[in-house]
Order: sequence, then structure tokens, then C-alpha cells
Amino acid sequence: MSETARRTKDSSAEQGVREDNLVARVLASFDGCSDQRRLELMRGVVTHLHAFLRDVRLTEDEWRAAIAFLTEVGHMTDDRRQEFILLSDTLGASMQTIAINNEAYGNATEATVFGPFFVDGSPSVGSGGDIAFGAAGEPCWVEGKVRDVEGQPVADARIDVWEADDDGLYDVQYGDHRTAARGHLLSGADGSYQFWAITPTPYPIPHDGPVGKMLEATGRSPMRPAHLHFMVQAAGYRTLVTHIFVRGDELLASDAVFGVKDSLVRDFDRQPAATPTPDGRAVDGTWSRTTFDIVLAPEQP
Amino acid sequence: MSETARRTKDSSAEQGVREDNLVARVLASFDGCSDQRRLELMRGVVTHLHAFLRDVRLTEDEWRAAIAFLTEVGHMTDDRRQEFILLSDTLGASMQTIAINNEAYGNATEATVFGPFFVDGSPSVGSGGDIAFGAAGEPCWVEGKVRDVEGQPVADARIDVWEADDDGLYDVQYGDHRTAARGHLLSGADGSYQFWAITPTPYPIPHDGPVGKMLEATGRSPMRPAHLHFMVQAAGYRTLVTHIFVRGDELLASDAVFGVKDSLVRDFDRQPAATPTPDGRAVDGTWSRTTFDIVLAPEQP
Repeated sequence: MSETARRTKDSSAEQGVREDNLVARVLASFDGCSDQRRLELMRGVVTHLHAFLRDVRLTEDEWRAAIAFLTEVGHMTDDRRQEFILLSDTLGASMQTIAINNEAYGNATEATVFGPFFVDGSPSVGSGGDIAFGAAGEPCWVEGKVRDVEGQPVADARIDVWEADDDGLYDVQYGDHRTAARGHLLSGADGSYQFWAITPTPYPIPHDGPVGKMLEATGRSPMRPAHLHFMVQAAGYRTLVTHIFVRGDELLASDAVFGVKDSLVRDFDRQPAATPTPDGRAVDGTWSRTTFDIVLAPEQP
Repeated sequence: MSETARRTKDSSAEQGVREDNLVARVLASFDGCSDQRRLELMRGVVTHLHAFLRDVRLTEDEWRAAIAFLTEVGHMTDDRRQEFILLSDTLGASMQTIAINNEAYGNATEATVFGPFFVDGSPSVGSGGDIAFGAAGEPCWVEGKVRDVEGQPVADARIDVWEADDDGLYDVQYGDHRTAARGHLLSGADGSYQFWAITPTPYPIPHDGPVGKMLEATGRSPMRPAHLHFMVQAAGYRTLVTHIFVRGDELLASDAVFGVKDSLVRDFDRQPAATPTPDGRAVDGTWSRTTFDIVLAPEQP
């Protein structure tokens, strides 16, 4: 072996030892942490952070760029805009956290991202009521049954629904204190529910900040496929936070926040103008209808 | 197998598939990225971030706490305070990046963290000059030789040195535009150099922000062991950014930013009052002296 080859080999082994030793020292620095869960979390952060750095062989320029990016994300974030949540969403971290905390349970309906636009205390609309409250959009009739995993109806489940309007905006994004395209109702004794909403339409996540730049720089779109948010709560059952999506939406395969699951895609059937409505309501022009049967997992499976 | 056991087993397998599929979808979202290095970095971020989430089974409350922590780090950061760098430093990520980019090479002197307190254009003090410029502290004589890995002297190497004063503060932390405890000189024809500085003392990293809270909550100290910063540049050699530490310092094993390496610990020998100095300078009281021989790696090993 030549002198150079020998030195390179020795150096390479020595390099690995140096990097390993550093990880070990950082891990050991948390040994005095008295909270076991916090200790576990910090060890996890350190283990995976260092594995990332070593795996990609991060350069010093790239480290500086990462610091500058996080700084920009921090400065973009305020009471109305949470750029760190957008970052978590667009890296799939929000959706993975939801997957981890809503483990698959029999045929229970799958959960998806909560999003930043839920508001506590939405108006009660009653069975068959209209959550649109004047939001622009095509009327949409939504109906289904709430059941448990054994197929038994769940009565009095509280069903919160919310969605963007035809312009792709939630009421809270207008900043004029309007309440629209959100409401709640209860399932009946047989688990059934029905209400009027508006046919969901696609919209982009806020993309005028560093996360938007990241999406653009990596060839990704900020668009989300059309969806209608649900949160379903009933005593003795795990709270379900989910959406339904529109079958045929071209964006289903490229949701910017990875919220789509096949089991949550529904047919939204467009009805020609003058088609009679389920409850006799008079509608000008077309309307749509969909069915979403919900299965709740027990609270502590 | 009981019905419950069977369902649990099926669910558990199904759960793993769901989590795997999500990671695959997020990775695939970057397939349109035309910059190969950026693609590699984003894939690395996603792979290791999701591995962390799944490994620790992050709860939704913990996810919210992480978002709140990062938000606080972002809001603490401004032109004078870089809390993200402190976070990187205290998780050992800065030091690991330095290790990766300054691979072990023969007997070349090891690198360590740059820190936030270097200033471009420090005063030239010449061989045997004093970099203290009035900074409070015990005088310290520093000498050594700059050599290459073959043992040949490196002449005209630019040696920048900087350090905190006896109150644990760098000049730039005073905000009064003073320049003190920093300077530069060149190595001589035989590679030798010598200068006066002040004996380094330990100090805490800024710990009145979220990173300080993290250290406290995990039983860690914000203290750094005493050190003197060096940056050594010479044509044809890899720039060396490093420190020397003081043998016997109790903090050597618990540096808040993991900058200590055994090879960088030096004897600082305290000299009784009235001990003659190497250059005949009159010193009131005690002084110390140390030797630091520097070995530079070639620019492109």
C-alpha cells in the first residue's frame, strides 16, 4: 500500500471515529435530564439530526443557508401566519404525526391534517341545515351515517365541518370577522346526518414566504386538492379529524401537505339545474351531492 | 388467535404500511427538483425527520410544543443574536458540520467551532505584539510553530486570534465599538510565531432565550470552558479554524457547544509575579505561558 493510500485509509477510519465520538458526547450531555420522556426526545433529535448531517455530508455553506432559511421562517411567523406549521405540513411531518397518533384501527375512518383554519364555537346548523352562511360556491348536499367499528350507529356525535369558499379562502382569512362555510350538527338516533355546504374547490397554501420559495426551488406546487374538513366527537370514541376529497380532482396525487388518503376520496355528483333537492330546497343552477359514512374507533383501543 | 389479537396484529402491520407510504409520497414530491444536490438534501431532511417522528412516536402535544419552541427561537433571533446558531451549537450540529468538512488528515491540527464573535479586519500586532488592547485579564504569552504535515515550516501564515475578556465578554458584546482581545500576525520564515494575549477564562453562552430554557430543562449547563480562538490561513493549505483550551479546566468535559478535542488542550503555565518574561516586558503580578504548534493540511488532500 502506498504512503498516500495508507494515510487516506487511516484518515477515513479516524474520521468515522471522530464523528461517532461527537454524537456520543452530545447524547451523553443529556444524561442529567430527569424527565425520561424529554430525555428520549432529545436523544432522538440528536441521533437523527447527526445522521442527517453525516449522511448528506452537509457543507459549511449549506449549514449557513439552513440557518438563514430557519431565520426567515421565524421572522415570517406571527399571530396570523404560522410558517413553521407550513414547513411541517409541506415536509409531511404534520401528516406523519397524525398517522402516528391515530393508529389504524379496524375499519375506522382515517384521520388527516387539522390545518390552521378551524375555529372553536362554530354555529349550530341542526340536521339538514346550511353551513355556507353566504360563502360563494355551488350548493352541496352532504349525508352519511356515524357508526362504530362493529357497525352500530353512534347517536349525538358532534360533527364540525369547515371549508374554503370558491375563491379558495376561509372566512378567517378575510380579516373582517365574518363566519361562513363552517358549522356543526349532531348525528341522529340512527347515526345519520345531513347538511348543505358548498362544493369544495382547490386552493394554494400561503406561498409568499420561505416555505413557498422552498416549494418553488424544488419543483413543487403549493396547491391543495379540494376538500371539506370534518371533526367528529362522541363520548367513548377517539376524536376524528379528517377531510373528504373530490374524486377526479387532478390535484389528488400532489397535495402540498400530503393529506390525501384513498379512503377519503368521495364522489361528488353534480346535479343538473332544476334537479329536485333531497329536502325540497330551491336551488338556482347546478348543485352536487356526496355521501360520507364515518366509522369511529373506540377511545382507548 | 383471538379476534382482538388478530385485529391488533393486522392494524399494526397496516399502521407500518401507512407510515412507510407517507414517507414514500413525501420523497416522491421532490422528484421534479432539477438541482441534484438540492434533491439529495431534501430527501435527506425528509428521511431523517420522518425516522425521528416514527422512532420517538411524537405525540400531537409534543408536535405543538416543537412548533412553539421553533417560533420562539425565530422571534429571539435578530441582527445581534442568532438563536438558531446557538441551537445548532448546543445540539452539536455545528461541531458535526465542522468535523465533516475538515476531515482528519494525518497529524494536521483539528478544527473546532468558529463561534459568532470573529470580526473581519482585526488589528495587525506583529510578531511578539499584544492582542489584548486593554481587555481585562492576566497577561498570557503564546508561542509555537506553523508546519505542514511533513514537518516543514510554513512561513507567512496569517494567524488571527480572538477571545473573551475576564468578564466573559467579547469586545463586540459591549456595543461601544471597542476593539480588544483580538488581532492578527504572520508566522516567521521558520514558521514560528509569538504574541501576548490574556489567559482565557470560562463563560456562558447567551442563555436568556429558548435555547437557555432547553439547556435548563434538560439538566445542561450553558458554560464553555476557557479558550483562545485561532484562524490560520496560508496559501496552498486548508484554512484552520480552531481553539486552544486550558488543561485542568473543570469544564473541559461539559462544553455547551462540544468544541473541546483532547488534541487542543494545552498547558497554560502560571508564572509567579516577577518572573522574567520572554521578551523582557514588565508585567505586574502573575502571567501565564503556553505553546501551540500548528500543523496545516494541504488545501486539496
